[in-house]
Amino acid sequence: MRRRGVLIYALPNLFTSANLLFGFLAITLAFKNQYESAAWAILLASVFDLLDGRVARLTQTTTSFGVEFDSLCDLVSFGMAPSLLMYVACLQNFGRLGLAVAIIFALCGALRLARFNVLASVLPKAYFQGLPIPIASGTIATSVFFTQKIDFTITNSVTVVAMVLFLGLLMITTFRFPSFKDTHLRHRRSFTQVGILFALLVALVLWFEISSFLLLIGYIGFSLAAGGLRQVRKILKVREKSQVVVN
Amino acid sequence: MRRRGVLIYALPNLFTSANLLFGFLAITLAFKNQYESAAWAILLASVFDLLDGRVARLTQTTTSFGVEFDSLCDLVSFGMAPSLLMYVACLQNFGRLGLAVAIIFALCGALRLARFNVLASVLPKAYFQGLPIPIASGTIATSVFFTQKIDFTITNSVTVVAMVLFLGLLMITTFRFPSFKDTHLRHRRSFTQVGILFALLVALVLWFEISSFLLLIGYIGFSLAAGGLRQVRKILKVREKSQVVVN
Repeated sequence: MRRRGVLIYALPNLFTSANLLFGFLAITLAFKNQYESAAWAILLASVFDLLDGRVARLTQTTTSFGVEFDSLCDLVSFGMAPSLLMYVACLQNFGRLGLAVAIIFALCGALRLARFNVLASVLPKAYFQGLPIPIASGTIATSVFFTQKIDFTITNSVTVVAMVLFLGLLMITTFRFPSFKDTHLRHRRSFTQVGILFALLVALVLWFEISSFLLLIGYIGFSLAAGGLRQVRKILKVREKSQVVVN
Repeated sequence: MRRRGVLIYALPNLFTSANLLFGFLAITLAFKNQYESAAWAILLASVFDLLDGRVARLTQTTTSFGVEFDSLCDLVSFGMAPSLLMYVACLQNFGRLGLAVAIIFALCGALRLARFNVLASVLPKAYFQGLPIPIASGTIATSVFFTQKIDFTITNSVTVVAMVLFLGLLMITTFRFPSFKDTHLRHRRSFTQVGILFALLVALVLWFEISSFLLLIGYIGFSLAAGGLRQVRKILKVREKSQVVVN
């Protein structure tokens, strides 16, 4: 432990601290009505959140302290910040109902993070159980750019209220959301996959305000549709079997 | 598990949810410049925080999920809410320095909660290592009542900036703060203790705005003084021993 120095052990926690820093900043910016800056701060927090886990695994410095600290900072940046951003930008105009929706989103975020810490080691890695909180918060953050680009005023939008509530509740469902962790780009069919990935990247860079939000909404829609299809197939299989028995 | 019903298992988590609810409310109230209401919301959150753990232990329904969920909600109510309350009421007038102090308090709160979850089972129960986060947040909340009562304007107060920074840093020290968990009121000397406790209770009820803050500051001061005394005694003992060796 001594040979590798203290810095390498501090590095993941430093990234996690940066995550909290940008989450905190997002909240103060939201209350100054600087919604776009707040949304950027939330996305920056996500970048640091992606980095901390990866760096810890790469340098093999994952600690139980780091896992706890990471969840806590995630709640600030991906539970509180997006919820308060939408509260100031829209929900507060709906009185207590709006406040309730904002609190429900934050509460569902906390429940999602607590469940993840308890179940992460037990569940399969190919998919997430319930919408991951950084994707819920990313959808909210990018919706700020998207609505501004298409000139849609969110101040009194019922659609936004419904979206925040829906994203919150999706986090505490047991619906499956693919993690793509079992996708290997070395396989034969990878050529098409790399092509799609490249096209998405180009779209993200050139039309970020539009494509980032649509990509996340597309991911959520695709996951829900795939889950629905799985359910239908299951029911059909059960019926087939019972018909075989009857015949 | 079935015989005792689902409700008894949900009860501690319901209290924890109420903790988050009042923490969230405190943040929105702070940004509406309703500092006293925000401070009350933080204190109410503390009451629910005291209840959840106790109810879980009494009904023997403590779960690892509950422990995780509790920490997350604690960060909202005792890390974010007091920090944002002081940011709006005072720190923001100090520019980036004020923002930095607010973020440091929240960050130290997250570090304290993460450390507690990792070390709670290992450390002795007679004292806390580092200032507990509900006491740091309680000191900030009651300081709002106190300063208002003595007509002290906090808007541009350097003392308040120093207090928030000091409370934040105290959380991540390893200083000992007595938990009073080994105090048994059935002992012989308990008569005086019950008397003191009763006097404190009367003071708390009759002069809450003054006594609540002074009590918390007194607790912190007493703990630091006791720690200092322990250090001095240790040094003296080492000297005595070395003198004995010399003689």
